[in-house]
Parts: sequence; structure tokens; C-alpha cells
Amino acid sequence: MDERERTRRPGGRSARVGAQVHQAVTDLIGERGYGNFTVGDVAARAKVADSSIYRRWGSLEALLGDVALTRLNAQSPMPDTGSLAGDLRTYAAQVAREITGPDGPAVLHLAVALSGGGRQGLLAGAGLRAERTRQLQAMLDRAHDRGEPALDALDVLDHILAPMYIRVLFGIVPLTPDYIDGLVDRML
Amino acid sequence: MDERERTRRPGGRSARVGAQVHQAVTDLIGERGYGNFTVGDVAARAKVADSSIYRRWGSLEALLGDVALTRLNAQSPMPDTGSLAGDLRTYAAQVAREITGPDGPAVLHLAVALSGGGRQGLLAGAGLRAERTRQLQAMLDRAHDRGEPALDALDVLDHILAPMYIRVLFGIVPLTPDYIDGLVDRML
Repeated sequence: MDERERTRRPGGRSARVGAQVHQAVTDLIGERGYGNFTVGDVAARAKVADSSIYRRWGSLEALLGDVALTRLNAQSPMPDTGSLAGDLRTYAAQVAREITGPDGPAVLHLAVALSGGGRQGLLAGAGLRAERTRQLQAMLDRAHDRGEPALDALDVLDHILAPMYIRVLFGIVPLTPDYIDGLVDRML
Repeated sequence: MDERERTRRPGGRSARVGAQVHQAVTDLIGERGYGNFTVGDVAARAKVADSSIYRRWGSLEALLGDVALTRLNAQSPMPDTGSLAGDLRTYAAQVAREITGPDGPAVLHLAVALSGGGRQGLLAGAGLRAERTRQLQAMLDRAHDRGEPALDALDVLDHILAPMYIRVLFGIVPLTPDYIDGLVDRML
């Protein structure tokens, strides 16, 4: 298959390469930690050429941001329970499960590291957060449209997400259901 | 001066080496970011032998934790204003100034990175946090002894420090005085 043909068919091979590369990144973060591997390491692990990665993602930072966003969207879709309290409790419990799961601390360190990793890292981190903030704000706006209090995504970041993120980053775990619900109730 | 003599006199030369090494670490974090330099880089910048660093600190992680704690203690001593609200507002404003200052994000990334950096990093990070938590709890206990509400250092971490840390780590700045006082008032 030549280069042009490959570009024209994003389904089969392209999807498979994408999945291999994502898995390779997740494995390498788990084994070595963020910042301790290169595009070459990812390529070798995924059994693809370095050039395939650069062509598709442009930089290691953009690839890392893509991996983090894909994982978050797959594992923590925004809930729609019919009430603001229900949505927030479900969302908070999902995030807690995600960041305390086997790859969770690695993904969280990645998000933090992106914000301290130069211009490409900043762009990738900002893109990742902008997309998740947009999804969260849509959930909050749905509640407001139903006549529930108006909330800003930043309130949720400050009072629900930030305490959970910092506790996991500092190793103050587990996050118990009572603790998580307490954060939501306190905010509401 | 031979090795033994140097060890016996912790004042002059030892203090000077300590200051040079600390400054070298702060500079390297600012220029390259955490994780992108070695003990050898620090030694070269500080104009000391690698072996001097290993002998004194044992590992890069322990050195990084020592630098972070020294900076925090020097720049953000715990306040004693006579009231819990005053203490917390002053403390929160100090922390905000520290983490948004020229070296602030680097120190914060360091503290986070230590928690994801293997056993030596975990130990250094835990030691750093334990010492600061002890100081903070002493401030809260003073207030309780005066008859003010009892607070736990973890409450302050969750509701005042975590939102500020995450906003700086995610680049959502500045932290305005109104925002900081709002976090304290909300918690009290």
C-alpha cells in the first residue's frame, strides 16, 4: 500500500496503527513515567515508523494529549441523570475511578506535565482541557435549562475536581464514596 | 582541605556549596523543567563534584525535595495574626504569591513530579508534604486553642490549596485577591 492510498483509507490500517500507538504510549507512561520516553520508543513499541507518528500527530506532546483525551472520553463520558446533583455525583465518581485506576495517576501526571512542558505541551494540554471543559459546561447548562442553579465549569474544577486531583497527585488515597459525595454536596 | 575536615565544618564551605547547589537546581528547573537534568548537570552548574551531591543528599529526588522545602519555608512561613480568618487569608495569599512567582510553577511541578517519580521521589515528596502539613496544623491548632473552630490541615488542602495549585498547574491565572479570599471565606 503506498503513502497516498494509506492516507485515503482512514479505516482499517490507520485505526489499527492509532490503537497500537495509543497502547504503546499508555504502556510506556506506566513503565517509565512521563518524560522518560521518546517518539522513537513509542514507534518501536507500537511497531510503526517514527515518521508515521510525526506525520499523524506532529509532536510527542500532541500525541500524549490525544491519548489522554481519548481515554477520558471513553472512560468518563459526561452523565445525563436528569438532575444536577445526580450528574455531579456520577461525574465525580467517574473521575475518581479514572484517576485512581491502574493508569489513572499516569494520565493525571501527563496532564500536569503537559502544562509545564514548553509550547507544544502547553498547546496540547490546553486543547485537552478545553474539550473536557466544553463537555462539562454542556452538562451544567442542561441543568440550568431545566430550572436548576447555574454553575460554571470552573466551580466544578475548584471544588470537586481540584481536591481529588491533588489528593491523588500527593498520594492521599483512597477517595471514598462519602468523601466524593461530600465534595459535591458542599458545592451545591 | 581534606574530606574529613570538610565534614567536620558544616559552616562556611558546606553552607556555600549548599547554596550553590540549591541555586543550580532552581535555575535548571526554570530553564529545562523537572525531569530534564541530572545530578551531573547540577554539579557542573554549581561547580562542585557529582560525589559531593550524592554524599550530601543521596539522590536527585532527595535534593529536589530539600530545595522545594527550603524555598517554601523561607518564602511562606506560617502566619500568626491572632485570628483564624486572618491566618488563613495571609497564608493563602503567601502560597498564591509563591506559586505564581517566577519560580513558582517550577516548584509546584517539582512537588507533583516527585509523587510520580518512583520510590525515592515518593519518599522525598512525602517528607516535604509532612513537614509543611505539620506547620499548617500547628497554626490551625493555635486557633482552636483560642476557642475558634477546629480545622484539619486536609480541609485547607482540599478547599484552599488544591484549587490554587490546579489553576496554576493548568495555567488558569492570575489568582486575584478576591478569588483567594473567596476560597477562605467559603471554607470558614
